[in-house]
Amino acid sequence: MFDSGVGGLTVFKELIRLLPGEDIIYLGDTARVPYGTRSANTIIRYSLENTGFLIDQGIKILVVACNTSSSVSLPILARHHGIPVLGVIEPGARRAVTISKNKRIGVIGTEGTVKSGAYERTIHALDPRIRVFSHACPLFVPLAEEGWTDGPVVHLTAQHYLTPLTEEKIDTLVMGCTHYPILKGPIMECLGSHVQLVNSAEETAKEVAHILENRNLVHTSSSAGTYRFYVTDNAERFRKVATHFLGTQPAQVDEIGA
Amino acid sequence: MFDSGVGGLTVFKELIRLLPGEDIIYLGDTARVPYGTRSANTIIRYSLENTGFLIDQGIKILVVACNTSSSVSLPILARHHGIPVLGVIEPGARRAVTISKNKRIGVIGTEGTVKSGAYERTIHALDPRIRVFSHACPLFVPLAEEGWTDGPVVHLTAQHYLTPLTEEKIDTLVMGCTHYPILKGPIMECLGSHVQLVNSAEETAKEVAHILENRNLVHTSSSAGTYRFYVTDNAERFRKVATHFLGTQPAQVDEIGA
Repeated sequence: MFDSGVGGLTVFKELIRLLPGEDIIYLGDTARVPYGTRSANTIIRYSLENTGFLIDQGIKILVVACNTSSSVSLPILARHHGIPVLGVIEPGARRAVTISKNKRIGVIGTEGTVKSGAYERTIHALDPRIRVFSHACPLFVPLAEEGWTDGPVVHLTAQHYLTPLTEEKIDTLVMGCTHYPILKGPIMECLGSHVQLVNSAEETAKEVAHILENRNLVHTSSSAGTYRFYVTDNAERFRKVATHFLGTQPAQVDEIGA
Repeated sequence: MFDSGVGGLTVFKELIRLLPGEDIIYLGDTARVPYGTRSANTIIRYSLENTGFLIDQGIKILVVACNTSSSVSLPILARHHGIPVLGVIEPGARRAVTISKNKRIGVIGTEGTVKSGAYERTIHALDPRIRVFSHACPLFVPLAEEGWTDGPVVHLTAQHYLTPLTEEKIDTLVMGCTHYPILKGPIMECLGSHVQLVNSAEETAKEVAHILENRNLVHTSSSAGTYRFYVTDNAERFRKVATHFLGTQPAQVDEIGA
């Protein structure tokens, strides 16, 4: 799996919960994070490079644990290699379509993800009658990375971003950025209990389990999986920020060149 | 001049005010912004690449309009080329030393700048008796880029970062990141009128004028200078965000490869 940085650790966390026997290699492209404000061409180039590194490690499935990368580069990544390639957008979109009753779905994400229109396209392919309301929330990523998950600053910021969506009377909100589950508390508080929250990380982990089972690729040994973390820069900061995501520091983080 | 992104535009703005006849080439490394959370080696590599591009344009002086880059890469950049190379740290540090009466100076900047200790070193080289109190303010950059320069979120964030410094009874604060002059209002409000604010952008522009005069390099034609903007990614976003910094959109922004 790869992400632009630490955000994909929310997906990692769900994966190890659901598939405790699998070995996982996590690559965080911390030399070039964030992807959310980059152009589509640049995101595709970075994503191809990340994928090449992981393919060389002999992986059996690739999870693109970054909404921005998934939104623009998934078809290209899937074309290049002979293994299943899974993004975080389709699983979240499918879940939202299943649970929305009033057919009004909100999507929050980075500028790149929102601009790509990937959620709208995926949701409309599943049900063209659904109305989708998207909103970029650029300050959520730095807030999550700094661990500001509570207090007035994050609450006011959430209100600023989410009020236009609640005014549209959405009944379902997709957290379309892997950082956002860290801010689940203030997001839910701002939405109220009548709006259901979709965590793409959870849905993606379920989908990975499903694919591995269907293809007979589940690791059947009874021993626990091993985890390796690679970053393209500043392993020290990754370890520190990862603590907000995992609740514990990753044991070993190795730096590779970007 | 180069910066990791748009922040250096605060320096650009002061330069064109002070030296209206000079042609300026501005390079924003928007494919790899922000530098503030990267490791020193990575920042040096990116800075050398930016410098190479500008040297190829035939510049007569280089301004490193990024505190993070200035803090770790300036001696290396200065060594490589035969033109004056100026960073933003020394001018701001010198000004702070001149105006501080109680010899207690605060410095705010990115994680990279604060961790480098460059301001402490520069200030202590000028006056070893001065006490320096540094604080990283990682949320100031995204707030400035989003244009959140007023309102409760930026005020509460400023309070969070600056209260530890006011408690140390500083009488002078250096804004050690080129983004921060955008947030001058909330920063000053939080500090109170007894603390003097040093704007590195202003001090750097004065220093550039001084060097050009001393070396007889001032452009003497009576016509106004021309300005060229290059970015390594997403010119569209640069144009948009630049508006918060310049009050107007730059006429033309060209993309070059990172």
